[in-house]
Amino acid sequence: MQLKTTIRPFQIKRDSILLLDQRKLPHEQTWVTCASAEEVAVAIRDMVVRGAPAIGVTAAYGFYIGIWNAIKNGKPLTPALGERTKKMLDKSRPTAVNLFWATSLMQESYKEWIEPRSPKERKAESMSLLLLLFEKVINIQKDDASRCEKMSVLGADYIQKLLRKGKLNILTHCNTGALATAGIGTALGVIRALAARDAVSMVYADETRPYLQGARLTAWELKKDRIPVTLIVDSAGAALMKQGLIDLVITGADRITANGDTANKIGTYSLAIAAAWHKIPFFVAAPESTMDASLRSGDEIPIEMRGGSEILKSGEKWIAPKVPTLNYGFDVTDHSLIHAIFTEKRVFHPEKR
Amino acid sequence: MQLKTTIRPFQIKRDSILLLDQRKLPHEQTWVTCASAEEVAVAIRDMVVRGAPAIGVTAAYGFYIGIWNAIKNGKPLTPALGERTKKMLDKSRPTAVNLFWATSLMQESYKEWIEPRSPKERKAESMSLLLLLFEKVINIQKDDASRCEKMSVLGADYIQKLLRKGKLNILTHCNTGALATAGIGTALGVIRALAARDAVSMVYADETRPYLQGARLTAWELKKDRIPVTLIVDSAGAALMKQGLIDLVITGADRITANGDTANKIGTYSLAIAAAWHKIPFFVAAPESTMDASLRSGDEIPIEMRGGSEILKSGEKWIAPKVPTLNYGFDVTDHSLIHAIFTEKRVFHPEKR
Repeated sequence: MQLKTTIRPFQIKRDSILLLDQRKLPHEQTWVTCASAEEVAVAIRDMVVRGAPAIGVTAAYGFYIGIWNAIKNGKPLTPALGERTKKMLDKSRPTAVNLFWATSLMQESYKEWIEPRSPKERKAESMSLLLLLFEKVINIQKDDASRCEKMSVLGADYIQKLLRKGKLNILTHCNTGALATAGIGTALGVIRALAARDAVSMVYADETRPYLQGARLTAWELKKDRIPVTLIVDSAGAALMKQGLIDLVITGADRITANGDTANKIGTYSLAIAAAWHKIPFFVAAPESTMDASLRSGDEIPIEMRGGSEILKSGEKWIAPKVPTLNYGFDVTDHSLIHAIFTEKRVFHPEKR
Repeated sequence: MQLKTTIRPFQIKRDSILLLDQRKLPHEQTWVTCASAEEVAVAIRDMVVRGAPAIGVTAAYGFYIGIWNAIKNGKPLTPALGERTKKMLDKSRPTAVNLFWATSLMQESYKEWIEPRSPKERKAESMSLLLLLFEKVINIQKDDASRCEKMSVLGADYIQKLLRKGKLNILTHCNTGALATAGIGTALGVIRALAARDAVSMVYADETRPYLQGARLTAWELKKDRIPVTLIVDSAGAALMKQGLIDLVITGADRITANGDTANKIGTYSLAIAAAWHKIPFFVAAPESTMDASLRSGDEIPIEMRGGSEILKSGEKWIAPKVPTLNYGFDVTDHSLIHAIFTEKRVFHPEKR
């Protein structure tokens, strides 16, 4: 069975990428056009597009369009151009590792193509470089869709075998769906796979403050795909677990270190502790590209600190007095709290390390 | 030392009560006038006033003004009138026990006054009943202020002795301050007492979704009283604890059962689990009237279920698609997670039961 959704976070064209403006969902469906690497970086920084795998594809496109513009403006195809373009894109969000993974892939292809060529050859054959890079972006996108499907099936199989229950009550955090990837999603992909097997009783979606990805995006995706969803405030999860309303918790990841420590949206760690407290299994679904073997543990992950206005304001309206805030975008969940991590390749048990 | 604040949630007059409209804080300071028991009940239900002790005083006033109106309209002062008035007020919020405690006090006084009197005497002497009931309201108010101060000093003494640290980093949830009581507050009273001793490094205030009492009220109170405050999203507490940024957690309570199980604002339970996980002491501050010895454990506490619009909308603006919600107003924290409960009379250790 092929798992499907009609939801897509971007439309890729040769001269620009259209990004579904996720800041305006669910009430407006508008598209933002990015026709330069700089515009792509700004769109990632400003969260027009979000979700680690979707950011990866978008950043890869940013690299391609950066080179396209350089060629159009007659700039020489130097090694420095590739490095500069990658660096500029990498600065847009500091926590999600597969942003760097995607720009590295692009930069590698660029380097491999220019290195054997003289400046003159580079200029003469630049169209073939562009086609190569464009194909690379499309492949990253296709591969992501296929990874989503593989990890979703692996995860659904594992969960059904472990829990042996007809219909499951699932708690999830943030948005890890079609809007966050180029496919059916990561954690939400697993939920879609379970729903396709009629194994979902209810998805409890955390609203996910401050940016409300759960309220705005996850609730919208699930409603659109007719999967039963109930929206709750982030702090209610533990109380629901105590009442026996939750069979499992599943989230995505932005970066996973060698020992299985997992950086994900702020609030994930709190849920993982509550799940452990109630002996409810806590799962993570993420592509292998989220694994960062260069870091030994979660202590080494840089955590993005976001501006206070996300907490202090709702749209343009102030909801709080002007006071200091501490607005971490992510937190780190200890590997010991994670029952299993589903990737496109394997079911990984960090708690048993 | 007398602990003070200029913040007051109500102004009590003979013919009406003015309630500071807490739904409009911090940006508007408007007062709602209630001149009947029904108006008082609606104001409590609609959260013009909130916080268990402040609700208690307001409901007591509601009883008084109900009898005042009956007398004005020439209605007979029957036992049924007292019961009806109490019942109507009690229905406004189902979880906070000292609402019932306050209306019971009023109803008792009413009963004691009418019982020995004939219908004729009741009519002739009705002004003395009104004065008695008014005095009762003022006493409940004064007693609450004095209880706040006593529990705050007890709590601050205990915490300083236990933690032996010059300046403390404190995490709190919801609003338990001057706006929630007739005095300096319960949990926020303890914080005010610590601040008066220069023993507060930082108060991390949970924004407290969905109603944002932390963002709108606690941040406003602390800023007004020049106590250092940092606003965070509710799900960030555990991550801050892991980083060593929190020395203690303290919240108020809406109802405490015989074994020390504590009903409080949704999210309290999640914080208490995270505190236990990180071996950080979790405290509750609440007046003795919050204790409900008639209930053996938290399983018996009725939990108020509130409407979905609090989660789905911000003001009049929809932030989520129209999906079902599960909006518990409160959750119950196991006594085993609570290091100490501070009341005006004692330091109670439910975890050691």
